[in-house]
Amino acid sequence: MASAKEIEEGNQIRLKLNNSGMLPVVTTDANSKEVLMIAYMNQEAFDLSVETGEAHYYSRSRKKIWRKGETSGFIQKIKEIKTDCDQDAIWLSVEMVGGACCHVGYKSCFYRKVVKDSSGGVALEFTESEKKYDPKKIYKK
Amino acid sequence: MASAKEIEEGNQIRLKLNNSGMLPVVTTDANSKEVLMIAYMNQEAFDLSVETGEAHYYSRSRKKIWRKGETSGFIQKIKEIKTDCDQDAIWLSVEMVGGACCHVGYKSCFYRKVVKDSSGGVALEFTESEKKYDPKKIYKK
Repeated sequence: MASAKEIEEGNQIRLKLNNSGMLPVVTTDANSKEVLMIAYMNQEAFDLSVETGEAHYYSRSRKKIWRKGETSGFIQKIKEIKTDCDQDAIWLSVEMVGGACCHVGYKSCFYRKVVKDSSGGVALEFTESEKKYDPKKIYKK
Repeated sequence: MASAKEIEEGNQIRLKLNNSGMLPVVTTDANSKEVLMIAYMNQEAFDLSVETGEAHYYSRSRKKIWRKGETSGFIQKIKEIKTDCDQDAIWLSVEMVGGACCHVGYKSCFYRKVVKDSSGGVALEFTESEKKYDPKKIYKK
């Protein structure tokens, strides 16, 4: 097993997958730098992303490789792939095709911010003024 | 249980924690928009972050709440907290205190990018030219 120092200071890829064989991935828009989504990759999704230059994830709900945009056409062209100190997370910087990322219809999956409400509790406030597309038209059964 | 529509279209917080009671968090620099780190929160870390305005995570290795900067002094002042469509991930936009985030010494934990090497394989290339501090001086046993 590689030492922490080898993992942190080296130029070798030694991806550290979790018990389910995955690691979290944050994807940002190469132009606006906005965070678009957080998803997961397994080794195959990582290899496919490197090989094809298009973002591939592992869908935990569908239990299969998920080529982003395979249904919607909203493909993500990878501009840069980074890994973190522990090599247990990935950062993808991508060029969006179609101007949207989220299955709900918004550009980013992060379309709501946390705010304190009048009663001292916490609520969500929408930060994207409109959906970029109608999910019902794109995700037909 | 809340429906997917209620979770995605509503203004109520209904954080969806994983089987270990956590969810992944991406933290970006509010000024440069750079991704600094990916870590995890449990409900307590989320509540403490909202309440104090300083980033709190859950340390999986130490199995306890981790107030970022508690040892190093590199505190993260929260400018914005967002959640995603499924409410199973968090995005923190922060102002960094001390100019560094990573325990290895770099500003961001993502200090290496994935490149193809001459033999057709994949390697890592350092993207930060120097460490911001000497970890040995800060993290004394």
